[in-house]
Amino acid sequence: MITAPTLIQIQLGEHGYPIHVGRGLLRESALMQAVAPKGRILIVSNETVASLHLGALQASLAGREVAVCLLPDGEAYKTLTTLEQVYDQLATARINRDGVIFALGGGVVGDIAGFAAATWHRGIDCVQAPTTLLSQVDSSVGGKTAVNHAQGKNLIGAFHQPKAVIADLETLATLPDREYSAGLAEVIKYGLIRDVEFLVWLENTMPRLLKRDYAVLQEAVSRSCAHKAAIVALDEREAGVRALLNFGHTFGHAIENAVGYGQCLHGEAVAIGMVLAAETSERLGWIDAASVTRIRNLLSRAGLPVNAPRIGVTRARELMELDKKVQAGKVRLVLLKQIGDAVVTADYDNKVLDAVLEERMA
Amino acid sequence: MITAPTLIQIQLGEHGYPIHVGRGLLRESALMQAVAPKGRILIVSNETVASLHLGALQASLAGREVAVCLLPDGEAYKTLTTLEQVYDQLATARINRDGVIFALGGGVVGDIAGFAAATWHRGIDCVQAPTTLLSQVDSSVGGKTAVNHAQGKNLIGAFHQPKAVIADLETLATLPDREYSAGLAEVIKYGLIRDVEFLVWLENTMPRLLKRDYAVLQEAVSRSCAHKAAIVALDEREAGVRALLNFGHTFGHAIENAVGYGQCLHGEAVAIGMVLAAETSERLGWIDAASVTRIRNLLSRAGLPVNAPRIGVTRARELMELDKKVQAGKVRLVLLKQIGDAVVTADYDNKVLDAVLEERMA
Repeated sequence: MITAPTLIQIQLGEHGYPIHVGRGLLRESALMQAVAPKGRILIVSNETVASLHLGALQASLAGREVAVCLLPDGEAYKTLTTLEQVYDQLATARINRDGVIFALGGGVVGDIAGFAAATWHRGIDCVQAPTTLLSQVDSSVGGKTAVNHAQGKNLIGAFHQPKAVIADLETLATLPDREYSAGLAEVIKYGLIRDVEFLVWLENTMPRLLKRDYAVLQEAVSRSCAHKAAIVALDEREAGVRALLNFGHTFGHAIENAVGYGQCLHGEAVAIGMVLAAETSERLGWIDAASVTRIRNLLSRAGLPVNAPRIGVTRARELMELDKKVQAGKVRLVLLKQIGDAVVTADYDNKVLDAVLEERMA
Repeated sequence: MITAPTLIQIQLGEHGYPIHVGRGLLRESALMQAVAPKGRILIVSNETVASLHLGALQASLAGREVAVCLLPDGEAYKTLTTLEQVYDQLATARINRDGVIFALGGGVVGDIAGFAAATWHRGIDCVQAPTTLLSQVDSSVGGKTAVNHAQGKNLIGAFHQPKAVIADLETLATLPDREYSAGLAEVIKYGLIRDVEFLVWLENTMPRLLKRDYAVLQEAVSRSCAHKAAIVALDEREAGVRALLNFGHTFGHAIENAVGYGQCLHGEAVAIGMVLAAETSERLGWIDAASVTRIRNLLSRAGLPVNAPRIGVTRARELMELDKKVQAGKVRLVLLKQIGDAVVTADYDNKVLDAVLEERMA
């Protein structure tokens, strides 16, 4: 059975946009032409993704003026130098105010191409065509774009909402298992922070989800995008509630930083971080031990790590404080009032956090 | 007599901001501290301006954590390479989300520093402290920021409104005459496009304005900023009425491009462009010959050129079409319905434009 594509509309006033989730969307010429109805097009992708999916997108855009810019693959290339290559290609392809960038790839491609679109002619249209689970359920939606600086990740960036998001589920078929599981961490996150019913559904369908069954994938990706869209609509510039999306991320960033980016995938670090946040919530008496076990089990079944690397309490504290603003000596954390209900808070006893770090990371 | 500073508030909802115009503002510590009440500060300036005004600003910011980034002086340095230096300094000075950039200089410094502020941590505060007449009455207000690309000016940029604009009139005392006159072109422009009373006042006070009399300067800069602020408030992203500000600019950009940037100052090219736009308006029967003479006379008295370089009709046409969108074979121009009332239009007979180019530029 082929499920019809899902359409989610993100409500952001005059710059709202559609998120299309479905099988084979890149091959649907009518849709690809409709999301970029006019102007010259630059497809930004990387060598790995291009070998798999560029042909389909190019065929769908037949009859249009299309240029291609291929970036080297990997977070190490999310730099100003790579961005400059994109600008050069935009100039060579004579992309003007009416032009459109298609970002075909994972988070790195989406972030660089999105930032180029944010800044070329002070902002041109960008269509995000994410090809990893992580980018489909998280980074392609919400308009955050950036490149890294030697001193830190995403230091140079802009908010620039895409014109449309095209999440073609078939691009997930070729994703390595480890990357696929890393994407599931963010899917599970939505259940934990705001949708316990979705969490139960994920618990029940995890075997089919791991088989990448398209009907189940469509539901998982659509619901994740709908959650992201709802939160972004409430808080486009991350002034408030959007911080809930950082559940597991303050612990996670400290872990990524300590063990080295690339050693540990972002989704893996977030999985461990969510367990630590849950354990902190438990020590505060907000959730019970059974809930923590439930979270650990689901993440494990999704193929994710749940035990923190022992990077040391002092180092963990330092890195967490680097990551987020410290308020009255306390790191603002996203914690669980209960499963399906997260809060952003600095209103907890520091000793509780120390106890968690001591037990898990010393 | 010392005139009290003028305060103009630009109305842009949650990102409105004050424009302060007056003598010696950079030395007013209370004001400088108030426009940047918290966070670490990076002052971006160039070597020429720093030797004149950096000390005053630093003294006013005493007690704060202030770093300085000096750029080489000149439009040739408005590049990604220079921008990267600013990012490096932002990182070294550990400027985070709470930090503030002060742009102390003319249009080039303001554009680069403003773009760095637009993109560092996806947008931090920027205080514009323009030190040329042109930047005080035009580029520092309105939030346009950019750097150049080899293929064209301002191709890489963003809209990012400053937190405040500080137009210290004393910085104009040391400006070379030619640069000062170039700034007057934009002042006169406001009179021509929307304020005939201001134009009459400029005609009457030109001798004192040329002597840089502070009371007159304060009125001229304040009224110019108020006009710019009013137009920007109506059209922040240049979708409509803001195009009126391009009066004289489509001709002007063609001239700048043909004779070479630096050979001809922007304001000088705009002055000639305004005469050509007036002559086009006259040939359309919208204004009379006496009005054109009146415009030429005022610009001449301000020390500006009014005769176009003979770059050739074909070249002029080509460059004008490159500059602006062509609509049904016609370049959109800003023309005068009457003095003090400009319109943006492609609704004119192409032969009329050809006749002007033939007479003045062949």
